[in-house]
Amino acid sequence: MSLDDAIETVLQKVLQRIRPTEEERAFVEGLMRELEGIARDTIESLDLDVKPYFVGSLAKDTYLAGDHDVDLFLAFPLDTPLEELRERGLELGRAIAERLDSHEVAYAEHPYVRATYRGVKVDLVPCYDVKSWRDVRTAVDRSILHTKWVLDNLRGKNDEVRLLKRFLKGINAYGSEIYVRGFSGYLAEILVIRYGSFLKVLESADFMLRQKVIDPGNWLKREHEVAMKTVGREAEADRPLIVIDPVDPRRNVAANLSWEKYGIFYFKSTQLLENPSEEFFFPMNRKIGNYLSELRRKGTHLVALLFEAPELVDDVLLPQLERSARGFERALSREGFNVLGWNVGRKSGKAFIMLEVDRRERERVTIKPGPEFFTERGRDFYLKNERVWLVGKRLFAEKNVMDDIVEVISELLEKNQVATGKSIRENIRNAEITLDYVPKELEDEAYLFLSREKWNLKG
Amino acid sequence: MSLDDAIETVLQKVLQRIRPTEEERAFVEGLMRELEGIARDTIESLDLDVKPYFVGSLAKDTYLAGDHDVDLFLAFPLDTPLEELRERGLELGRAIAERLDSHEVAYAEHPYVRATYRGVKVDLVPCYDVKSWRDVRTAVDRSILHTKWVLDNLRGKNDEVRLLKRFLKGINAYGSEIYVRGFSGYLAEILVIRYGSFLKVLESADFMLRQKVIDPGNWLKREHEVAMKTVGREAEADRPLIVIDPVDPRRNVAANLSWEKYGIFYFKSTQLLENPSEEFFFPMNRKIGNYLSELRRKGTHLVALLFEAPELVDDVLLPQLERSARGFERALSREGFNVLGWNVGRKSGKAFIMLEVDRRERERVTIKPGPEFFTERGRDFYLKNERVWLVGKRLFAEKNVMDDIVEVISELLEKNQVATGKSIRENIRNAEITLDYVPKELEDEAYLFLSREKWNLKG
Repeated sequence: MSLDDAIETVLQKVLQRIRPTEEERAFVEGLMRELEGIARDTIESLDLDVKPYFVGSLAKDTYLAGDHDVDLFLAFPLDTPLEELRERGLELGRAIAERLDSHEVAYAEHPYVRATYRGVKVDLVPCYDVKSWRDVRTAVDRSILHTKWVLDNLRGKNDEVRLLKRFLKGINAYGSEIYVRGFSGYLAEILVIRYGSFLKVLESADFMLRQKVIDPGNWLKREHEVAMKTVGREAEADRPLIVIDPVDPRRNVAANLSWEKYGIFYFKSTQLLENPSEEFFFPMNRKIGNYLSELRRKGTHLVALLFEAPELVDDVLLPQLERSARGFERALSREGFNVLGWNVGRKSGKAFIMLEVDRRERERVTIKPGPEFFTERGRDFYLKNERVWLVGKRLFAEKNVMDDIVEVISELLEKNQVATGKSIRENIRNAEITLDYVPKELEDEAYLFLSREKWNLKG
Repeated sequence: MSLDDAIETVLQKVLQRIRPTEEERAFVEGLMRELEGIARDTIESLDLDVKPYFVGSLAKDTYLAGDHDVDLFLAFPLDTPLEELRERGLELGRAIAERLDSHEVAYAEHPYVRATYRGVKVDLVPCYDVKSWRDVRTAVDRSILHTKWVLDNLRGKNDEVRLLKRFLKGINAYGSEIYVRGFSGYLAEILVIRYGSFLKVLESADFMLRQKVIDPGNWLKREHEVAMKTVGREAEADRPLIVIDPVDPRRNVAANLSWEKYGIFYFKSTQLLENPSEEFFFPMNRKIGNYLSELRRKGTHLVALLFEAPELVDDVLLPQLERSARGFERALSREGFNVLGWNVGRKSGKAFIMLEVDRRERERVTIKPGPEFFTERGRDFYLKNERVWLVGKRLFAEKNVMDDIVEVISELLEKNQVATGKSIRENIRNAEITLDYVPKELEDEAYLFLSREKWNLKG
């Protein structure tokens, strides 16, 4: 079997798993019609001038089998004041949700209603009824334009998008959330439209990085100045890709895509093209080993901080954990410990920060550099220290310090000398600190981290 | 007893030990007259136009009791060609030495004869008979001018010079040799002449550092341009003091004085003035402890390299050892070991380099940074390494390394990755390397180093 045939076989198998069945499709379409009816009824009964739009992968028919959450946008006229939109929008969302199974209010830039109906999650999001990028006022307003653009341009490539999304999920590069920094669904759709197919997107992994700017809306001609400003700004920020949003020349669709996730996409694309396998789309669980053996093999040590995770969504919590881990890295390096890597996350209600360090004890005495000897401060330093010597004109003395890394960390936290995330500072202060030990439920995580299998591009 | 009285008492006691007795004085003077006679006879018998001069502390009567080596300079007319001066000078020196007890030829800028006579060392040094700095041709020519200047200006302060010299010896800051970098005898004489007495020199330790330039010859008026050039050059070199040689405006008498030795002088001066004691002049041996206990106390480790000392004078060997120690410091730091301090020297025919390090083993795995992923080299790096991950656009991988510091050092030497002194490179390559152990004869040295008592300004 040729390589092309082998790839085709794999893609067909994958498609069988991710393409919605006729049954699911019928269910989803019935659901949408029903929801639209309810929405229109409610709008009318409240005497509002609002249009309901379906957006997202359901509306574009690019959703994966079994993954059919509904995004129903409630578009107010452009002349509605923002305050009124927020108020009436929430009111309307609630009134619609009353007729569904259950609901709660969620918060993004504006509050919106998150409901469930017949086992499906339904988001009811108020927005403006924009016709052009010049009208855009809130972050969600573009969704209607995105949906329209994709529907106008996809030309039956829906399954190609499904393949790309599933591939990105499989290699852990799907989602533009701040703690993923991967490819959004919309970006996947644009790439398929731009390069023509799933495989062509993969084959272009190197080319598009070099080309850097992708402009499917032809904005560089139509709105040269605005588009060039976007390109300049995003190039300055050193993004891997600059994909000018076909519905808004001010926006880089790939603004949240990190180099790490692009790199994974880059290597995995080649791998799939050379060694096709369903595993790229549906990876098996990584082989797990013993984290203690891993520590012995490497001759390093693991410090883990465990604490109650505060009531924060991952979008907020994870960046705070990352910032804190970097804070520990810097603070410990000042104290003579080398942090080889770190890993953060949340598991069974607890948040954790793991630090891989070069040793568990440092020397008990460090050399303290002092001022120049012939100064006021030099004389003080001379008087205050027991053994003092010179290197050039500078005084030096010994300083006794704690040698155990857990004690050092405790003291750093006590003295507030670790730059931690603001909203988890108190939790970290009260964290349980363990050395070369993690509780049962974190053992796999510790192994994946220490072995670097968690991020292994070859895994 | 007042502080002044206490100081006076100490100085009197010290003077009793360092001022030559009438007996010694008579012996020395007899010796000098006798040597002068022999020299004049020999010059005449060889039919040379040479004048014998006594220079140095004997000629200036600033020598310490028991320390009366003779410097007899043989001054040739200025019109003698250099080659002839070297040849005839050595010839004359030998001819004089034939009539003394024993002799050998030694080498400085020029060869000279080192003889002994009646138990006293006698250096017979050829030079030019210069009358002014403009005549100076070889490094030793100034000595005659120095001797004359001190004799003309000392005005009976001979004992003050003796006190200062003995004090500098006691605090280990005497001698301008490259491996001491302290105060020369001539500098001590100038300071006493400039400040008036031993105690006044000590009291001026802070003042003279701030004043920076000392110009007893008044060159800044008499030869402004030449003297300013000297000041500019030496200020650029950041010397602690700029003492324009009263017999040569081109020269800083304190050019070889290091900040370390000035610092010792600075602190010890204050200490003596506040707590007078003979100990400053005649220190007892430092209290010696056990170097292994010191290592345990500090939680550090000692690496010692021991090797055959090559046939080099200390002036050459010690700077080479220091350069090598700094080379090890840099190389080990690149390898993840922190060098807290180093110490070099020569003992019973062996040279040694001691390094105090933070640990004896490092982690067995280090993180190896690679190139950017989308490059040719990035692809190579990806293929060559087992586990590869990204931080930003940069690839990283693990690398297995040796963890034992002795093995690391051996490998560094093998791969020629330590910047060592040139003339001891081979010796160092064949050095014996020990960890937390030194042979019996180096135990005290190891203790003084590890405890920093060796350099302790408060010791």
